[in-house]
Amino acid sequence: MVEAKEEIAITIDEIIDPLPSWNESDTKQAIVAYVNDVTTEGNANFIPVSERISTFDNDGNLWAEQPVYFQLYFVLDRIKEMAKDHPEWKDQQPFKAVLENDLETIKKSGMKGIGQLLMTTHAGNTTEEFNATVKDWITTAKHPTKNVGYDELVYQPMLELLSYLRANDFKTFIVSGGGVDFMRAFVSPVYGIPSEQIIGSRIKTEFDYNNGNPVIKRLAEIDFVDDKEGKPLNIQKIIGKKPVFASGNSDGDLPMLQWTASNTHKSFMLYLHHTDAVREWAYDRDSHIGKLDKGLDEANEKGWTVIDMKNDWKVVYPFELND
Amino acid sequence: MVEAKEEIAITIDEIIDPLPSWNESDTKQAIVAYVNDVTTEGNANFIPVSERISTFDNDGNLWAEQPVYFQLYFVLDRIKEMAKDHPEWKDQQPFKAVLENDLETIKKSGMKGIGQLLMTTHAGNTTEEFNATVKDWITTAKHPTKNVGYDELVYQPMLELLSYLRANDFKTFIVSGGGVDFMRAFVSPVYGIPSEQIIGSRIKTEFDYNNGNPVIKRLAEIDFVDDKEGKPLNIQKIIGKKPVFASGNSDGDLPMLQWTASNTHKSFMLYLHHTDAVREWAYDRDSHIGKLDKGLDEANEKGWTVIDMKNDWKVVYPFELND
Repeated sequence: MVEAKEEIAITIDEIIDPLPSWNESDTKQAIVAYVNDVTTEGNANFIPVSERISTFDNDGNLWAEQPVYFQLYFVLDRIKEMAKDHPEWKDQQPFKAVLENDLETIKKSGMKGIGQLLMTTHAGNTTEEFNATVKDWITTAKHPTKNVGYDELVYQPMLELLSYLRANDFKTFIVSGGGVDFMRAFVSPVYGIPSEQIIGSRIKTEFDYNNGNPVIKRLAEIDFVDDKEGKPLNIQKIIGKKPVFASGNSDGDLPMLQWTASNTHKSFMLYLHHTDAVREWAYDRDSHIGKLDKGLDEANEKGWTVIDMKNDWKVVYPFELND
Repeated sequence: MVEAKEEIAITIDEIIDPLPSWNESDTKQAIVAYVNDVTTEGNANFIPVSERISTFDNDGNLWAEQPVYFQLYFVLDRIKEMAKDHPEWKDQQPFKAVLENDLETIKKSGMKGIGQLLMTTHAGNTTEEFNATVKDWITTAKHPTKNVGYDELVYQPMLELLSYLRANDFKTFIVSGGGVDFMRAFVSPVYGIPSEQIIGSRIKTEFDYNNGNPVIKRLAEIDFVDDKEGKPLNIQKIIGKKPVFASGNSDGDLPMLQWTASNTHKSFMLYLHHTDAVREWAYDRDSHIGKLDKGLDEANEKGWTVIDMKNDWKVVYPFELND
């Protein structure tokens, strides 16, 4: 009889496991222990629902970012598409390098060259036109080595974490260095996060009338870079509350994690370490992403929870569930 | 028997009336008809929940704004408080005028003088310090003629409208020319709107470390003025969706109302006309608020719903309910 009871208990536990793609490691246990602690009324660490703000970096944290940021592939694909109307680009850098798939020359063109490509593909249209262009791209483009859509390279364990937090009345926000309108065009259904909870970098805009119809035009000028100290600044500007839970994977996320760690409520800092060279990519101190060492060092030093992707995640991508 | 049935029906109607402080006029009927239309599944005008974004101006729309914007009273009270540490102010304009309660000289000092007063009272502190200062002020300050707290001069019918929209799965946002951190310090419980749904004007900020503890410092420089075309621009930047319901009372709200009117979903534009010289103030074309005529004219011309405060509102302020 006792054995039968235990079997039933285990089965129910498995059914209600909110994080089934996470291995039963310290990382998962730390997340669950935190959520249980701060959401149980009467606990010393209880956090009221209105203060349960969680912020997630996107690139390399909710979806992959290798071999280069996925938004750059959008830029390259768009340049090739737009080249039909720009015959002069075949002799003109940095466009020439894009048309010749010469990623090294593009990288060498630095912020000036990449900035020019970014503005050429992101500005000079209305918000509605840009939205339609990105939507179009995401439904057809394929990752160069994984050969699946970019939106399939999201992390299943992080999708479960987002759902788990929401089920516990946390509001989930994206706070990314990526373009806010790029993300908004398609990530809401993927992550279950509405556009008003997506924060990112953005270009300047202008309100105008097109034959009496109001439009918002996208201008070729940076408005705000949502990276490094820009993250806590934007969190304060847009959310107006300090997060209690923050999740990132690079030095660009460090100020957001430090800001969260300074909350008077018990807070949780989660740092994703890319350790899985087979299913994803293994990298930390040396990658196109730039420096990742300060974030990882500070996470280890301060005892923040570090995800070891290879060992903590049973599954990386949602499509593995269908294999 | 029939009479008895009717009596019961009327009683239930009264109990469930979501807008009890509104008179049974065309205005109330237009609001209720719109909400019923767009929230009834199967209707041609049905709007999915995720698109039910509503935006409300604050000053003169959710609370009063006479004889001057209430945030200016905060500025004046703070200058008097801070004057203890600034003996030089008694001979120095525009501070001298504040200390002498000389509102005319302050007004005449224009954007330069008022800007100086604004920055003196709003900048040079951390976000947490500023928040505490405003909270302190709102619990003690009294309106000069109404002699009640400023947060008591909110409009009861608008509080009911906000609740009614939320009960119908609209998200309610404030989109105000007022300072976002000023509003956030106290209006959330008053309006039932969380800080992440409050959009306003703001000054620049800086992320810094105070003995290793991260702080956000408020700088004496304008970052964004959330007025006129700034309203739709900020709505796009922060919400990323076009509202379906917008509510305002001045030319500063006109671009937001026009932007909302251009929604492909059926939208609702509400314009508050201050017609009640007894309970509130009666003004439109000529007031300290500046121009209010274009907004009102366009509202009338385009058939937007115009609130006639005197005739449409049974009650203006919440405290009248306790009289």
